[in-house]
Amino acid sequence: MLPWFQTDEILLRALREDVSYLDLSCESLFAPEHRSTAYLVAKGAGVFCGGEIFLRVFTLIDLGCTGRVLKQDGEAFAPGDRLAELEGATAALLQGERTALNLLQHLSGIASMTARVVRAVEGTNARVTDTRKTLPGLRALQKYAVRCGGGQNHRFNLSDGVMLKDNHIDAAGSIAAAAQMVRRKLGHMVKVEIETRSLEEVRQALAAGADVIMLDNMTPDEMRRAVQLVRQTPGGEKIPLEASGDITEQTARAVAETGVDILSLGALTHSAAAANISMRIG
Amino acid sequence: MLPWFQTDEILLRALREDVSYLDLSCESLFAPEHRSTAYLVAKGAGVFCGGEIFLRVFTLIDLGCTGRVLKQDGEAFAPGDRLAELEGATAALLQGERTALNLLQHLSGIASMTARVVRAVEGTNARVTDTRKTLPGLRALQKYAVRCGGGQNHRFNLSDGVMLKDNHIDAAGSIAAAAQMVRRKLGHMVKVEIETRSLEEVRQALAAGADVIMLDNMTPDEMRRAVQLVRQTPGGEKIPLEASGDITEQTARAVAETGVDILSLGALTHSAAAANISMRIG
Amino acid sequence: MLPWFQTDEILLRALREDVSYLDLSCESLFAPEHRSTAYLVAKGAGVFCGGEIFLRVFTLIDLGCTGRVLKQDGEAFAPGDRLAELEGATAALLQGERTALNLLQHLSGIASMTARVVRAVEGTNARVTDTRKTLPGLRALQKYAVRCGGGQNHRFNLSDGVMLKDNHIDAAGSIAAAAQMVRRKLGHMVKVEIETRSLEEVRQALAAGADVIMLDNMTPDEMRRAVQLVRQTPGGEKIPLEASGDITEQTARAVAETGVDILSLGALTHSAAAANISMRIG
Amino acid sequence: MLPWFQTDEILLRALREDVSYLDLSCESLFAPEHRSTAYLVAKGAGVFCGGEIFLRVFTLIDLGCTGRVLKQDGEAFAPGDRLAELEGATAALLQGERTALNLLQHLSGIASMTARVVRAVEGTNARVTDTRKTLPGLRALQKYAVRCGGGQNHRFNLSDGVMLKDNHIDAAGSIAAAAQMVRRKLGHMVKVEIETRSLEEVRQALAAGADVIMLDNMTPDEMRRAVQLVRQTPGGEKIPLEASGDITEQTARAVAETGVDILSLGALTHSAAAANISMRIG
Amino acid sequence: MLPWFQTDEILLRALREDVSYLDLSCESLFAPEHRSTAYLVAKGAGVFCGGEIFLRVFTLIDLGCTGRVLKQDGEAFAPGDRLAELEGATAALLQGERTALNLLQHLSGIASMTARVVRAVEGTNARVTDTRKTLPGLRALQKYAVRCGGGQNHRFNLSDGVMLKDNHIDAAGSIAAAAQMVRRKLGHMVKVEIETRSLEEVRQALAAGADVIMLDNMTPDEMRRAVQLVRQTPGGEKIPLEASGDITEQTARAVAETGVDILSLGALTHSAAAANISMRIG
Amino acid sequence: MLPWFQTDEILLRALREDVSYLDLSCESLFAPEHRSTAYLVAKGAGVFCGGEIFLRVFTLIDLGCTGRVLKQDGEAFAPGDRLAELEGATAALLQGERTALNLLQHLSGIASMTARVVRAVEGTNARVTDTRKTLPGLRALQKYAVRCGGGQNHRFNLSDGVMLKDNHIDAAGSIAAAAQMVRRKLGHMVKVEIETRSLEEVRQALAAGADVIMLDNMTPDEMRRAVQLVRQTPGGEKIPLEASGDITEQTARAVAETGVDILSLGALTHSAAAANISMRIG
Repeated sequence: MLPWFQTDEILLRALREDVSYLDLSCESLFAPEHRSTAYLVAKGAGVFCGGEIFLRVFTLIDLGCTGRVLKQDGEAFAPGDRLAELEGATAALLQGERTALNLLQHLSGIASMTARVVRAVEGTNARVTDTRKTLPGLRALQKYAVRCGGGQNHRFNLSDGVMLKDNHIDAAGSIAAAAQMVRRKLGHMVKVEIETRSLEEVRQALAAGADVIMLDNMTPDEMRRAVQLVRQTPGGEKIPLEASGDITEQTARAVAETGVDILSLGALTHSAAAANISMRIG
Repeated sequence: MLPWFQTDEILLRALREDVSYLDLSCESLFAPEHRSTAYLVAKGAGVFCGGEIFLRVFTLIDLGCTGRVLKQDGEAFAPGDRLAELEGATAALLQGERTALNLLQHLSGIASMTARVVRAVEGTNARVTDTRKTLPGLRALQKYAVRCGGGQNHRFNLSDGVMLKDNHIDAAGSIAAAAQMVRRKLGHMVKVEIETRSLEEVRQALAAGADVIMLDNMTPDEMRRAVQLVRQTPGGEKIPLEASGDITEQTARAVAETGVDILSLGALTHSAAAANISMRIG
Repeated sequence: MLPWFQTDEILLRALREDVSYLDLSCESLFAPEHRSTAYLVAKGAGVFCGGEIFLRVFTLIDLGCTGRVLKQDGEAFAPGDRLAELEGATAALLQGERTALNLLQHLSGIASMTARVVRAVEGTNARVTDTRKTLPGLRALQKYAVRCGGGQNHRFNLSDGVMLKDNHIDAAGSIAAAAQMVRRKLGHMVKVEIETRSLEEVRQALAAGADVIMLDNMTPDEMRRAVQLVRQTPGGEKIPLEASGDITEQTARAVAETGVDILSLGALTHSAAAANISMRIG
Repeated sequence: MLPWFQTDEILLRALREDVSYLDLSCESLFAPEHRSTAYLVAKGAGVFCGGEIFLRVFTLIDLGCTGRVLKQDGEAFAPGDRLAELEGATAALLQGERTALNLLQHLSGIASMTARVVRAVEGTNARVTDTRKTLPGLRALQKYAVRCGGGQNHRFNLSDGVMLKDNHIDAAGSIAAAAQMVRRKLGHMVKVEIETRSLEEVRQALAAGADVIMLDNMTPDEMRRAVQLVRQTPGGEKIPLEASGDITEQTARAVAETGVDILSLGALTHSAAAANISMRIG
Repeated sequence: MLPWFQTDEILLRALREDVSYLDLSCESLFAPEHRSTAYLVAKGAGVFCGGEIFLRVFTLIDLGCTGRVLKQDGEAFAPGDRLAELEGATAALLQGERTALNLLQHLSGIASMTARVVRAVEGTNARVTDTRKTLPGLRALQKYAVRCGGGQNHRFNLSDGVMLKDNHIDAAGSIAAAAQMVRRKLGHMVKVEIETRSLEEVRQALAAGADVIMLDNMTPDEMRRAVQLVRQTPGGEKIPLEASGDITEQTARAVAETGVDILSLGALTHSAAAANISMRIG
Repeated sequence: MLPWFQTDEILLRALREDVSYLDLSCESLFAPEHRSTAYLVAKGAGVFCGGEIFLRVFTLIDLGCTGRVLKQDGEAFAPGDRLAELEGATAALLQGERTALNLLQHLSGIASMTARVVRAVEGTNARVTDTRKTLPGLRALQKYAVRCGGGQNHRFNLSDGVMLKDNHIDAAGSIAAAAQMVRRKLGHMVKVEIETRSLEEVRQALAAGADVIMLDNMTPDEMRRAVQLVRQTPGGEKIPLEASGDITEQTARAVAETGVDILSLGALTHSAAAANISMRIG
């Protein structure tokens, strides 16, 4: 789980966005001592993500709200499943409902989509990862959701990994030059991934000592040949090959069967539909 | 357009998220005087949204970056269209690329989906609106995108409009009681919308003086009867009827043809896929 | 009440303003275990506002401070009344005293002035509202105080209601044109108020479909005629008329007796004197 | 003047408070290239304060807004005087108008009240100061306004000066003990003021080496005797005596004539009415 | 102690700096119910500072962490001493360890260095103070550590004391003119210190009514003569003389023996080495 | 260089810390049009770091301040060297002086110490790196200074690299188990370093597939044997060995000569003395 000292800011910002002054609807309807119970119920199937974060929203509104999750983050759910339950002042439950659900549905949507891709490539060698194509302010949470769905995280940002793309390479003159220049200042904990668009570039990336090689927008056939090339190069057996470029739930299997190690999908974080979960206040 | 004093915080947060320390990849490759031009190009069709915001990201990195949009927010684009162009230090362009694109693609995705729904209901009486089902920290921008796509905004949050739902009504005892209690404290600029699930509740909402009536999860047939009921009630011709409940691009037309005034879709902001736009650094 | 996730920021900012480093006076005088009780006592008469907020200041300093209010927000108090009592570490009580009182006295001052105006118009049709003439950073709290004093809130800000003034109207060409242009993009939950300075403009505002009409700086006589005009227009009986322009406690009654529905007073939030309440540490 | 790195936060917070999403009224009425001029005009008399801050609000909205003050902060103005003028996009002028005026009127109100009290004590030995009875988040600006009105500032907060009150003294056992305890840890740049309620306490404060002595809620007669006592004590001629306790514009002269050096008035910052200044957009 | 509402921001910022996304190392190793005890142990000698702050870091991560200090801030410790102990979820202890230690070691380093200087001047008249040469964002904590080491604080910042240096004096024309100009606006709680570089300037500072005189970069001999000059001037016996300019642990005694009242050392806060303290998780 | 959107927050926080209200000393002495030039001059020798950041402080105070660096970050300087020059309003220069110098001296102190250690190990195979032992809120800047001094950065924080220590290993049961558990969730861009205290543990770390092996607190002799062991293991020639544990400028050479690849020193960021640089305003 992410630490509260990171996520509370996101939750508070969302709450302030939804109640910039006060909750006009509840103000005159509920006495402070009017309490209710509520529960989360799945209306579709998917993978749960954000249970503790969902409950936290209500705690931030009112310490007197208490609840518990009935599914752990990462567990699958089916329509009709109860996912969490909570109890508290009715006004607090209504005030937090939308904010808490918005996050939960978004995160569960990402986890569910990730899980579907992971399942699609089952039996192959490939792992599924996200990208930096995340929504502003939500990267930590979105990447957490990818992990809950069974995926792994690519680098978090520009500070914790190097990816050399054509612009970098052009500026340096060659793949080899770019790799060498960048390594001079890099710490020993940072990996260098090199983006390639042809077998020739894969060869150069290998020679330049890439820690990871990205096969960008290649056809399955090109990928297969790239895998072969790398695996036959001494030392190459340990270098992960990442397939990238508009991979979808539909095409993932074909890509994975080329033998690449990693499939990275921007869609996991920029285009996953919200999971269908609702909150019932009883 | 949204004012910069609102959106800069979102952009800076996103930039800090993507460069928590420094850009490891660019650090040793580009001298400060290495400059490039770049342009935005559409790879799919849609409605453009976020052009000025896209450019702003680069200005926040380096005042020396300049650019101009080639499409206005709200204009349609086709595959291959150039949408904006910019010029600046290469390191700044690469540093801002992902953050700026993430926002632009998300907003254009929302505007495009909204425009598709608006087109679907063309010729009917119905307007298309969003909901409070937005992503944390992005509501202002997402609702702006809905407007660019030709939709209207529902209330921004719990402080600028009242929506009486079953929980509120239960607490008060009846629709009439809830409406009366809530009105006692409300200012004269606030409208009261009442959620209904049956013709009987529509009748009560009318009697309670609702400014807007929501028809929640009704079938097209029920909606048609509700429209008829309200239109035939004296004073009812001016009361907007809002259809709500899992409306999709596919079902929108049928709902609109029932005669309702407003279709509200959570999917516009919680499930729109990113628009396919990329940035070329030349 | 306003939610803590909104008001805590204001309270913490105020505390940091008053103790930018440390409390020099208490540092060497009070051992952590030195505890005291304290109570709030009224030295003048008025309407109480800010009791829970007052107590919250001490909780934010030290979770070990506890207290309870003896008057609810909105209740009247007389000189000598005990309004709240609290117990905690002496250093915490002294550290929070000024910050907590500053807010309480300001809010009670607003509630008291509002209540005086409300009383002045008793028996007429008129309600009393605030304006956007609030102090920077304190709008939510000030508008809460107006409600506690028996007033209602005008729109919170530029995002939750439309007010068309002469500049808007000039830009559009006419009241009718301005109203039409603005409505095209507006959501169905937003009301449009039109500012008028003459009977002719009132007529145009009516024709333009104003939801509310403001009578700006009119004499009581003009207002009376405007009321008459609107009430005799079909559909006009439901359109609130708001009187505005340097209304004071002294002039409020005369204005109210013209038959207008709303009196809005900037003075409630920009010129109310602090209520005379002090804290005794025993 | 206060530095922008301090005040910009207050101005931006106020702007965000007034435009939490967007300016609904201007959105569809003004093209970006629609520009206007505006000017500030006094409707009453007073002392001007906040001119540069007023202009800054518009710069924060749009760098293209320019203006200049026609009165300096601290200068007197009469009804009808033009105080500042500015030029910019009409939408920016309308968006900033309320926020900028709210601050300007508040600060000019404080400066004006301060100037009235300063004038009232003219010819006596007394200086006029503020207190810590300020509004949350506005202390720096309010204290600046007091200086513009010809007053001086008391300590800014609990970190830059010591004031020993009865609670401190009780905890230590005596005035002498409290002063000694507190001095042990204090730096050499901090002054110690001691609050007294009787001649006997004044005597003890003198003996304890107070840097400043406050005469709290004494009658003019008691104050006169306290002044005499202190002035006749060797070394006492240099110790400022501060009169405090519900001093008003009306009572200030009588208090000043007792010979005290300082009059401190909470009302300057907690109860000054807003100055009557308006902005005309032409 | 400093109030939590001041220091929590620093601690949270540090935690977010150290865990910008999540703690990769602990994520899969420790179940939430895996708990440990830990203790702080001194590996060198020094003066303890930051005990409660150290514990607070863990509370901010997880309310379930509890602990107690075994030494108070300001107490001396020897190698091997246990300084604090705590208990909590293992993942929380590991997550907070570095952040908490970084602060504790830094503050104890400052307190220890201060204590060494204080000891060096023991028996003389001189007190030891810090300067404004602090590290960005840490001034309040660093100055607290100086107090724990037995030193006093110089002014906190430019808002709570005046120090007239050569640039100020040049601008005004003379020491006398500068002092007079600055006093005109100053409140009665603010002291004015004047920096001098020669006996002649000391004479002028005395004549100008300096509250404190700084002897800047003088030789011990010059200082001795300055002390003599000031002490023999009527009224001068009460004016503190501050020696300043690259004073070190080694030179402090010689400076103190000149008879000055205060030694100020920038090194206390800009160059103190971290104290050698480690945390053992058992 | 670090991006301004990261560092401006630190600079503004420092400025607000030093001018919490206003600059009392400059307020009445300098008219806004009083301008000065200033320059930075070295009083000792070292490696320059923070030149652009130094200038940025003054730009944040007043856009009218301009300057240029005469040494680049990372260049050596000798006593008497001019390092930068600037021009601006005198009040702005004096207001920013302390804040700008505090940062510059701290960063140059770190760069200078790093450069001394780098020089000490010259001719060996070893690189010099920092640790996570940084000061709260300053990590990005401190690690930048280490790079300017010729060092490399270890991981930035707990989110961008894994370091398995004894507590992690105990929890998992063995080095092998810990490595395996942690790898299951890790992305492909993250390296795993394992801390070892004996040859036996080095052997296990090798077997567990460590990307980097830390030799913690070993004697030079043990290190030499560890180097030998790893280099003779197939695949081991590419695994960096990091020596850690109270390495100083004095002991660095001896450690480097054992053949390790990396020396990490906490002292670079927690105990470097400030560089001796001053600013002259002329």
